[in-house]
Amino acid sequence: MSAEPDGVRTGPASQQGMRRANLALVLGVIARGPRSRAEVAAETGLTRAAVSSLAEQLISAGLVVEEGPAAPSGKVGRPGTALGLNPLGPGGLGAEIGVRHLGVCVVDLRGEVRAWRRKESANRGRPPAAVMADLAQLVRSAVAESGLRPAGLTLAVPGLVGGSGVLQRAANLGWQDIPLAAELRPALRLAGDGLAELPVEADNEANLGGLAERWLGGSPEDFLYVSAEAGVGAAVVVGGRLLRGARGYAGELGHVPVHPEGPRCACGAHGCLEQYAGETAVLRAAGLSGLRGDWVTLLAERAGAGDEPARAALAGAGSALGIAAAGAVNLLDPAGVVLGGGYARLAPWLLPAMRRELASRVTVRPWAEDRLTVSRLGRRGPLLGAAVGVVRAIVADPGPLTGG
Amino acid sequence: MSAEPDGVRTGPASQQGMRRANLALVLGVIARGPRSRAEVAAETGLTRAAVSSLAEQLISAGLVVEEGPAAPSGKVGRPGTALGLNPLGPGGLGAEIGVRHLGVCVVDLRGEVRAWRRKESANRGRPPAAVMADLAQLVRSAVAESGLRPAGLTLAVPGLVGGSGVLQRAANLGWQDIPLAAELRPALRLAGDGLAELPVEADNEANLGGLAERWLGGSPEDFLYVSAEAGVGAAVVVGGRLLRGARGYAGELGHVPVHPEGPRCACGAHGCLEQYAGETAVLRAAGLSGLRGDWVTLLAERAGAGDEPARAALAGAGSALGIAAAGAVNLLDPAGVVLGGGYARLAPWLLPAMRRELASRVTVRPWAEDRLTVSRLGRRGPLLGAAVGVVRAIVADPGPLTGG
Repeated sequence: MSAEPDGVRTGPASQQGMRRANLALVLGVIARGPRSRAEVAAETGLTRAAVSSLAEQLISAGLVVEEGPAAPSGKVGRPGTALGLNPLGPGGLGAEIGVRHLGVCVVDLRGEVRAWRRKESANRGRPPAAVMADLAQLVRSAVAESGLRPAGLTLAVPGLVGGSGVLQRAANLGWQDIPLAAELRPALRLAGDGLAELPVEADNEANLGGLAERWLGGSPEDFLYVSAEAGVGAAVVVGGRLLRGARGYAGELGHVPVHPEGPRCACGAHGCLEQYAGETAVLRAAGLSGLRGDWVTLLAERAGAGDEPARAALAGAGSALGIAAAGAVNLLDPAGVVLGGGYARLAPWLLPAMRRELASRVTVRPWAEDRLTVSRLGRRGPLLGAAVGVVRAIVADPGPLTGG
Repeated sequence: MSAEPDGVRTGPASQQGMRRANLALVLGVIARGPRSRAEVAAETGLTRAAVSSLAEQLISAGLVVEEGPAAPSGKVGRPGTALGLNPLGPGGLGAEIGVRHLGVCVVDLRGEVRAWRRKESANRGRPPAAVMADLAQLVRSAVAESGLRPAGLTLAVPGLVGGSGVLQRAANLGWQDIPLAAELRPALRLAGDGLAELPVEADNEANLGGLAERWLGGSPEDFLYVSAEAGVGAAVVVGGRLLRGARGYAGELGHVPVHPEGPRCACGAHGCLEQYAGETAVLRAAGLSGLRGDWVTLLAERAGAGDEPARAALAGAGSALGIAAAGAVNLLDPAGVVLGGGYARLAPWLLPAMRRELASRVTVRPWAEDRLTVSRLGRRGPLLGAAVGVVRAIVADPGPLTGG
């Protein structure tokens, strides 16, 4: 069914809707780079008068600033000033709970990072309230450093987040059925600086990493993103948007069967990808079970130094990743596969086996080798995706912030 | 980016666009069941005058008919007549090339079947032109029987169809790189009855079967459809729409690795699902290699009669289907899995093993058993999907048929 044709309806409801759509239209054009009012009018098809009025509202709301004279247009009359996104406008706040770290990031309206915090923190098995207290402290210091007023907070977590924002299960944290926003809010409230009133959303870290690839990493519109922290995560992006699934649990590539009779997984099934390419499995294969500290860094260092068991373990993980990815490619026909998170650092040793499996198992041939790429964002992806998502939502619909 | 706000633009281009959108809006409401003009106005938010004018255009185009008095509205004035889809309006034509049969279906604007033809035909290895000649003959006789004038033809084929409508590969027909519409058109032209001027589209049979489930089978908005003819096909439906992939090749569940070191598949890879659940594999497992005739019917008869090798072969296929489907469920989180095509007939012997694998391998638990269902459309799905898709496209955008 096509959208309702606003122009035919009458009354305040639809005028309100049209104003809101036009605010988004104008801000969307400005977000692509500074432009004069005349240029905005030409690109949007709106009248000059309408653009001036809408721009005024966006300026009053602190979303847009005048950046000085625009490039001369060659036309008679007052030279236009360029309108740009306000770098001191509302910011986006991302926060991350990892198994071994906490992270916070603040970006401005243009998506530029204004504060970045990362703190080692052994979160496995800790009660959520204690973790949230530490995270809130990190949030406060990052926000203070940024000098921005965040418009919202998105929390990245290594687990299954359902449509309602409840963390259904994070096996590597030992958490289940945690209402994340409700847990974080009391910790934010203690500071009394208004952060507790922020809208809080939560999402799976791989979903946010996948979105970051789309927004910042130059990925195609349709791709599979595969990443590792303690577990194996994935995001399926279709037409530039995240495929979330009926309940919000899509992307569990880590539990796709690779060798159906293989070792038993923590999830209860046998031979899941995580049993070949997750932290515990790779460390075991490398003879490093029980290691303390960051497995990605350690394995990268050993493999880089020519350590054979480390290299063999990573080749085995790459093969399993290739088998699972080939199945996903056959099912989804994405334009590309992006290796992100911790895997980006380990890519030199994962890629050969992964490429081999893809080349022999992708059924529509040829599978061009360059369709498997390595993320430039690496482990920064999920936190960037969380923070940038907040400001992208403002740009997509600034109406609620323009007070009318 | 939000849609362009038509109401703000001026000029003929946007008025044309609005008229077209409003025609679709009105026809879409009428397609849900007969309604008076007043009811259409109330449901669409359009004025009574606008609805009358739009209805007139739809009636002139032969898409809508007056069906006699509508239910009394209790209001003063002339009683309204109900508007309904015209059962004698333009029809939808579906055609199917199978490995062992040809099929044609004509539906009216309401989606009701007005002609149905199926002919046994050993198409494996036959040149496309010869197959198209037989198919064109079947098309002509079905169209004549229906008494309708088709608005378009969609061709269902058992192979990979790219975005441009070229059949990239149909391993079980032995065809590759066949421009399907261009092959069919000369055969249709011989009749000189205007059929050669029809718009022709082509799609993978499982894609069309999946769409038929969504449109006619009562499936949820997000589901995985798995079907068998000679090969294994699948369709991924997300938000009610087919996920086509970057190049149009999504849905190749038949080539998802099930046992990565398993037997070599015709596609060149090892251990693909088709090596466990495709025709050749199941017949081999049942000790029936080299059988002539329809494998689905034969196996259903044997298994129904208690034949142990047939039952064991189907249980093995069900287990492989369950492993592949569980991986797909973990990746996509659909609301359901639908077993269609030939598998629908074989379901009694496939389901127990398939359910077992899903229950133990779907990682977000519990996996409710009733999320795996059997298609009521069975092997009729792809042809129904092909024909109904044509009339649904008319209802979604009747503008081009209203001549203005």
